[in-house]
Amino acid sequence: MKYIYEQIQLITQYRYLLTLIQWDMETEMPPAAQDQTASAVSFVSEKMYDVMTNDAFISELEKYETAEETSQIERKMIEELLLDVRKMNRIPKDEYVEYQELLNYAHAIWVKAKAEADFAQFEPTLTKIIQYQKKLIEYYGYEAHPYDALLNEYERGLTVKKLDQLFSLLKERLLPLLKRIQTSGITITGDCFTTGVYSIEQQKEFCTWIAAYLGFDYDAGVLKESAHPFSMSLNKKNVRMTTHYHENNLESSISSTIHETGHSLYEQGVADFLVGTFLDEGTSLGIHESQSRFYENIVGKDIRFWEPIFPKLQAHFPDQLENISCTEFVQSMNRVQAGPIRIEADELTYPFHVMIRYEIEKMLFEEKITVSEIPNIWNKLYKEYLGLDIENDAKGVLQDVHWSMGSFGYFPTYVIGSAYASQFTHIMERDIDMDEALSSDLKQILDYLREHVHQYGKSKTADEIIREFTGELFNPEYYIAYLYEKFSKVYQLSE
Amino acid sequence: MKYIYEQIQLITQYRYLLTLIQWDMETEMPPAAQDQTASAVSFVSEKMYDVMTNDAFISELEKYETAEETSQIERKMIEELLLDVRKMNRIPKDEYVEYQELLNYAHAIWVKAKAEADFAQFEPTLTKIIQYQKKLIEYYGYEAHPYDALLNEYERGLTVKKLDQLFSLLKERLLPLLKRIQTSGITITGDCFTTGVYSIEQQKEFCTWIAAYLGFDYDAGVLKESAHPFSMSLNKKNVRMTTHYHENNLESSISSTIHETGHSLYEQGVADFLVGTFLDEGTSLGIHESQSRFYENIVGKDIRFWEPIFPKLQAHFPDQLENISCTEFVQSMNRVQAGPIRIEADELTYPFHVMIRYEIEKMLFEEKITVSEIPNIWNKLYKEYLGLDIENDAKGVLQDVHWSMGSFGYFPTYVIGSAYASQFTHIMERDIDMDEALSSDLKQILDYLREHVHQYGKSKTADEIIREFTGELFNPEYYIAYLYEKFSKVYQLSE
Repeated sequence: MKYIYEQIQLITQYRYLLTLIQWDMETEMPPAAQDQTASAVSFVSEKMYDVMTNDAFISELEKYETAEETSQIERKMIEELLLDVRKMNRIPKDEYVEYQELLNYAHAIWVKAKAEADFAQFEPTLTKIIQYQKKLIEYYGYEAHPYDALLNEYERGLTVKKLDQLFSLLKERLLPLLKRIQTSGITITGDCFTTGVYSIEQQKEFCTWIAAYLGFDYDAGVLKESAHPFSMSLNKKNVRMTTHYHENNLESSISSTIHETGHSLYEQGVADFLVGTFLDEGTSLGIHESQSRFYENIVGKDIRFWEPIFPKLQAHFPDQLENISCTEFVQSMNRVQAGPIRIEADELTYPFHVMIRYEIEKMLFEEKITVSEIPNIWNKLYKEYLGLDIENDAKGVLQDVHWSMGSFGYFPTYVIGSAYASQFTHIMERDIDMDEALSSDLKQILDYLREHVHQYGKSKTADEIIREFTGELFNPEYYIAYLYEKFSKVYQLSE
Repeated sequence: MKYIYEQIQLITQYRYLLTLIQWDMETEMPPAAQDQTASAVSFVSEKMYDVMTNDAFISELEKYETAEETSQIERKMIEELLLDVRKMNRIPKDEYVEYQELLNYAHAIWVKAKAEADFAQFEPTLTKIIQYQKKLIEYYGYEAHPYDALLNEYERGLTVKKLDQLFSLLKERLLPLLKRIQTSGITITGDCFTTGVYSIEQQKEFCTWIAAYLGFDYDAGVLKESAHPFSMSLNKKNVRMTTHYHENNLESSISSTIHETGHSLYEQGVADFLVGTFLDEGTSLGIHESQSRFYENIVGKDIRFWEPIFPKLQAHFPDQLENISCTEFVQSMNRVQAGPIRIEADELTYPFHVMIRYEIEKMLFEEKITVSEIPNIWNKLYKEYLGLDIENDAKGVLQDVHWSMGSFGYFPTYVIGSAYASQFTHIMERDIDMDEALSSDLKQILDYLREHVHQYGKSKTADEIIREFTGELFNPEYYIAYLYEKFSKVYQLSE
């Protein structure tokens, strides 16, 4: 077992280095340093590969997997390691390293293509990435559908079958709600977020404060800026997140900050004793998104949360907000308005953005479409689901960073996470006085999530967490009910 | 030779990682991540040690050192590598790794001791660091004086003998000048830098601009903030520097930015073909300081430099500067006023700050004093040279970060560098129209320094650069003449 812990120590060091390089790359690296950084990523990735695919390590893991003296937590640790190690082992080293190099350059190519709204520039690179994904599918294996192999990477056990069911349910139940809102005669604008210039310094001060207000521990974390907000954890005492500030948009920085804080609170809340066991991080993307979207939408757009702190926000932007009431402000946050950009979407149209990406990815791995067809299909689906005409590739198919990072099968976790969040909230409302917690004791909520979700890290799977927390399996009805209840109220729909 | 290049590639990767970790540690790392970061430094340092002390590498270097087919640049590369490799080889691995760990914690201990102005807190750690330095001296060896072994680490060939001569010359010639200034009846204040509040945002904007104005390439570099301004290079396309901003001090951010820009211009100016040869960085600390102090003092405090850009600065701080003339502003920058803090010192008292540190370090390695005696001696010497009473340890012996980093023998390079800068300027004035260059064509100066200094990286030693550039050996008379001429004018002293 000593040997296993030594290897975990190595893996942990290489992971720290890779994460630090990535953090630097996305927040600080000057453009001309791209080559050096790419070469460093390849270098460390190769070292990581060597540790993970070392035969002695695998046999040691297999030896202790079922040994009697192995404790329960070690069993879990070995199980998780074996999953990763076996998958890594199926990828030939040269393909793995070549792919890391491809990804290193893909980001810059995507950035340029997006800036010039030209999918054709990104197409050859995307084609190569997808070719590798198809190889991965063969290496990893699957039972029912090739795309399952990728979905499983981000949310264990997630399949096309489950997602087809979920998305057809959402289509069936949410499209009518959307239609009722669109024909309700009530129009809510977001004007209070876009009136004149919102000083970046003031936004920064407020966002820095609100992260701490939610429980973010600056002693063990950093909030910084980057083009695309994200979070990453070097370990639970070294959690990094970013937001972005736009002078003409107050909403974007606040909601991004709250969203990323949700991710960070999860990582900062992993139990201390899991450090060094390979299990000291969030268990799945779905659970991660459940935390970020819970804070962003369920906490961060609730009048009870805003009432005590709205005067503080007003004091930061007296010119723009002095004549706005807290009720109007929160109502604006909850307006429903279909738009082309996923990360700016309201809660109700959001699942449809994800659905479009899911359907395209599924078709790609079913070999039903080619890469060059993606933009047309993208635009067609946006018209079909949301009635939108997509102006150009930058506001369409090129908007997200994910594909340039090789993340196929990732998008569905956003909807899954939102749905988990509703299911969790349903139980939370039973155990906690939400009026009190949201208005004056957010720590109650954090403690509750720490107890039922955060502390476990990867020592429990997503399914285990959901079952033990809520007493049932994943159930999307809570998500639909939450959206119905919330938006019926916002748009004064009769029952 | 292929094997040697592979090892250089490895060394370069580990150096990149160590530098990146250090950059993160000093600019971003949250406090609780100290342990993780320290462990990463140890991990990578050990890898680096293993590459550097690998027997096969050393024999390969020795084989090619004198081989006929070895090109001139490769010969230089091997020579530099052998110097480092042989030194590293003399240090036992466990001592090396243990020392890296000690240094990782020393910084935080020093920070706390300084914050609480309490040398006693830092003393045990400093004692350990000095013990290791003494071991290093034995491992490295020396001819005349133990301290020479350390001085040589920062400026090759520098010895106590040379520095004793230099400092006694400076004492003999500069103390009388200082006295004349102090009794000249002319008082110049720095009030224009400390009138009210100078917005950090405005300072940031101006400093960001002035670095580019001097030639800093943001495509290949980063300017950021940290408590103590510094520069480091990941490679020539990835140069990082920091400055600091104080609301009540305009001078500090400007002069720190210009100083660090001098360092960065050097690193960004190394010839492309040296990348990957181990020679692609500044050749010595003395030459490095010659560039930073040249820009800080000789360019950055010259009226010809400021005249065209002063209106821009005024526009950033209209309330504080509208009634100040450029002449008054530059005069304030050149005021002579003995104070306790080295990094705030004027050009004339600066060498005495360094001299005090030099004398203390020399006594330490001569075993003439113990660590606990340092504060008293420090205070005594400040009284003797600069007539100052030191208020507390924070403003005295704890002010500099260097000792906590194990940098003994480093301080003298600041004076050496200032002296080099004067010697270089003497020649530059012969070749360049300085009026024109300073007021409207700084690129002339940068190109000239690139030609005579920057491009060579480590492919020439400091001595070679000085000799080939100026046609003579290092000669401190230029430094003394420069200070006499400049301050006689500022303080209207008769010849």
